[in-house]
Amino acid sequence: MRLVTYREGARRILGVLREDRILPVAGLSPGLPDSMEALLNGGPAAMAAVAAGLERHRGDGIALESADLAPPVPRPRKFLGIGFNYSSHVEEVRRKGIPIPDLSNQVWFNKQVSCLAGPYDPIELPASSEQLDYEAELGVVIGRRCRHVPPEQAHTVIAGYMVCNDVSVRDWQLKAPTAILGKSFDTHGPTGPWLTTADAVPDPQALSIRSWVDGELRQDGNTGELINGIAAMIAYISAVFTLEPGDILSTGSPCGVGAAFNPPRWLRAGQRVRVEIEGLGHIENRVVPEVPATRID
Amino acid sequence: MRLVTYREGARRILGVLREDRILPVAGLSPGLPDSMEALLNGGPAAMAAVAAGLERHRGDGIALESADLAPPVPRPRKFLGIGFNYSSHVEEVRRKGIPIPDLSNQVWFNKQVSCLAGPYDPIELPASSEQLDYEAELGVVIGRRCRHVPPEQAHTVIAGYMVCNDVSVRDWQLKAPTAILGKSFDTHGPTGPWLTTADAVPDPQALSIRSWVDGELRQDGNTGELINGIAAMIAYISAVFTLEPGDILSTGSPCGVGAAFNPPRWLRAGQRVRVEIEGLGHIENRVVPEVPATRID
Repeated sequence: MRLVTYREGARRILGVLREDRILPVAGLSPGLPDSMEALLNGGPAAMAAVAAGLERHRGDGIALESADLAPPVPRPRKFLGIGFNYSSHVEEVRRKGIPIPDLSNQVWFNKQVSCLAGPYDPIELPASSEQLDYEAELGVVIGRRCRHVPPEQAHTVIAGYMVCNDVSVRDWQLKAPTAILGKSFDTHGPTGPWLTTADAVPDPQALSIRSWVDGELRQDGNTGELINGIAAMIAYISAVFTLEPGDILSTGSPCGVGAAFNPPRWLRAGQRVRVEIEGLGHIENRVVPEVPATRID
Repeated sequence: MRLVTYREGARRILGVLREDRILPVAGLSPGLPDSMEALLNGGPAAMAAVAAGLERHRGDGIALESADLAPPVPRPRKFLGIGFNYSSHVEEVRRKGIPIPDLSNQVWFNKQVSCLAGPYDPIELPASSEQLDYEAELGVVIGRRCRHVPPEQAHTVIAGYMVCNDVSVRDWQLKAPTAILGKSFDTHGPTGPWLTTADAVPDPQALSIRSWVDGELRQDGNTGELINGIAAMIAYISAVFTLEPGDILSTGSPCGVGAAFNPPRWLRAGQRVRVEIEGLGHIENRVVPEVPATRID
């Protein structure tokens, strides 16, 4: 299944795709969840109930192209990224003279959950930096509360996959070794366009992953290149802390980021960044200048 | 006011203290919030309504000593910590030969929200490490959704303060420059015992802060020593991302952590760690050995 969250005013509605139509999940049959959070917290049983409801339902739904898509998982508890997980990217970073940490350990960082954006939402060029960059990444969404997951069981805790752009502000990223500020500006976590459930992705580590800026191909990799595979990542971090339904793991980016060019090719206002993963769809986000203003709600 | 969250079975109930009695907030008068999340999302108006309800209410409540206290803010969106924010601690780290980053920038890291623990809950000595350490810290809880907060307005976005122990696993912390795994083991974010509202803390940067292990004083500082003050911290990070009600900022630790002794004095199973901040109460957590087991719910 392909699951979306779409906006109607302030509401966020869970939908499921049938070809190019969105069917609201709560309308498929009584008792089905009305949000991605409720669906994921319901585990495999809730997922199976949605699939059964979709199978039986004869409604027409709304046109995908007319919907205002939100991040598929609008309110996760964690949004984690791993650095240096494609050799081609490690190489391009090394060529820039940036120190590479010890890669016998996995290098995890947080993107703040407040930075999530929808698949076609604008991303902001911060007023405080010119070094705005993109990173095409495969996002893994957790579907079970779990700890100490052995690699061979990792597939059982995955709800599905989606496209992520790990938008990064390089000067902020390098201000501190923890890197989290440069990864977490508001709007810098576009995801989507939908959550493709794990059963519909036969091999998540054999997918073409590409990005373009204004139509120019910048990254052209394959998730088969992951240094730490998905099972190894889940085993490693779940040895430390509990993963929860909705947690997002962004699994690293192949070579071709803007910082690696000489001179660097930072994103500029007005440009469009597109990230596409084979079988998972694409997201496309326009760069807009931030207009910084004090806001205290 | 002093606000607690306490447990009754699987329920988490918001209470307010009157001396040594807890009054359930939802019982004070109709329409009051029943969770810390709802209270903080309600902003200053909700806080004022609780204060008014407490003033008028004549009930007796339950004894504080009989309550099972949860983390005051059980489900924040962010749990952030700053490193190197007391000169005395920077010095002790330097003496250990650990590289100090450029401190002209603030060094922020995430503790995963899944690591939160109550004020008297056990903290686990991980099976995968012997290097368990404590850090006494002042926790600031955000009360307004805000961005680009100028330092002089920072006090308006603070809901209150509480005691934090930024429990750290040093070898895991040093495995990657981002440090987040060593800060985020389950149970390694004990907080409490209550949220003291900002109006009840005349000067949060003039409080004695101390920790003990099995009754032996280990840290003895004052929040007046903060290198980056609370207003500077809120201004810095809110220039990057939106802060939201319930977000927790743990503001750094003074000298005296276990790692700084020679040889290091790691926490051992059976020990008790107490952290106390003047006017905010104390938390005390017993160290228990982790019994690692695969759990997939």
